[in-house]
Amino acid sequence: MPLVNIKITRDGATAEQKAKVIEGVTNVLRDVMGKNPQTTFVIIEEVDCDSWGIGGETVAMRRARG
Amino acid sequence: MPLVNIKITRDGATAEQKAKVIEGVTNVLRDVMGKNPQTTFVIIEEVDCDSWGIGGETVAMRRARG
Amino acid sequence: MPLVNIKITRDGATAEQKAKVIEGVTNVLRDVMGKNPQTTFVIIEEVDCDSWGIGGETVAMRRARG
Amino acid sequence: MPLVNIKITRDGATAEQKAKVIEGVTNVLRDVMGKNPQTTFVIIEEVDCDSWGIGGETVAMRRARG
Amino acid sequence: MPLVNIKITRDGATAEQKAKVIEGVTNVLRDVMGKNPQTTFVIIEEVDCDSWGIGGETVAMRRARG
Amino acid sequence: MPLVNIKITRDGATAEQKAKVIEGVTNVLRDVMGKNPQTTFVIIEEVDCDSWGIGGETVAMRRARG
Repeated sequence: MPLVNIKITRDGATAEQKAKVIEGVTNVLRDVMGKNPQTTFVIIEEVDCDSWGIGGETVAMRRARG
Repeated sequence: MPLVNIKITRDGATAEQKAKVIEGVTNVLRDVMGKNPQTTFVIIEEVDCDSWGIGGETVAMRRARG
Repeated sequence: MPLVNIKITRDGATAEQKAKVIEGVTNVLRDVMGKNPQTTFVIIEEVDCDSWGIGGETVAMRRARG
Repeated sequence: MPLVNIKITRDGATAEQKAKVIEGVTNVLRDVMGKNPQTTFVIIEEVDCDSWGIGGETVAMRRARG
Repeated sequence: MPLVNIKITRDGATAEQKAKVIEGVTNVLRDVMGKNPQTTFVIIEEVDCDSWGIGGETVAMRRARG
Repeated sequence: MPLVNIKITRDGATAEQKAKVIEGVTNVLRDVMGKNPQTTFVIIEEVDCDSWGIGGETVAMRRARG
């Protein structure tokens, strides 16, 4: 009964992409560890680029700088 | 000083329901483990149904299928 | 299908206490929001007192100071 | 490669404040533990005041009461 | 730069299985969403069966009951 | 009342280093956002190198390869 939490930057991921990620990750856990898909939860959270930092600055700043 | 994080699907939980969950969970921790409510934090996060997967598909897809 | 994550300081919580917290929190979510216990997950994580800070110092330091 | 998740109440934190927190926290981890800023991720999540509880009631209720 | 957190029950997952899950999940995010593996972090956390609840009881209790 | 969760690889961080990180991060939130240290929680979690992945492989594998 794995719980998976995925955080990505908010960049227009479509419902279809999110569905495919959920399916793919669930399959990985089933194939590698034998985890039951029926009790595998996957949650995708999108985070704004001005709330996500790497290298000491926000992703928004990185992208603005090019 | 427990920290509680509760994720639910975004289904129109009211402010009153959220307040009751916060009160109830805080009381459980006080009654069972003697935790001080004044330093018990409870955070409720609502997740869209197309970002929550179970059984390898999104909750949105499950519900659409009926 | 709520997911609940509870962090507490590592203070010798017993298996029985953890079971009661899991039962109690699951019941709160069922009673207040109508959530199905069969798909309610509750995870309890215990954190060492020298890895938990409040007021800018660790719980271990607070307790040592009395 | 530390991962830092910061949850704050949604109170109008500006992009500039969030950027400064990201920079400051990244510097603390570099200065104290020698962590490489280029692989230090910091995510800030803002939580509504009616979804955040302390002392068994929501922050929204606390503030309304004054 | 996705962050993935996977919680599983502590059931003797091997280092090899964990490595395969990390590889597989990273590939799903690259293939479906074009995410760069070099900034994709995956963390696996194992939780004791008496600290994980479902259906209002711990996994340990469920298993003991058979 | 910020909640801060910091995950680092398990690499022998000392209690003193953890205390300094807690103090430093608490100060950043006070100085930049005016957050009250008395209700600022900071939790540090250490993750084994074979449970932490980046670039599709574990940190343990990366280090072994040199």
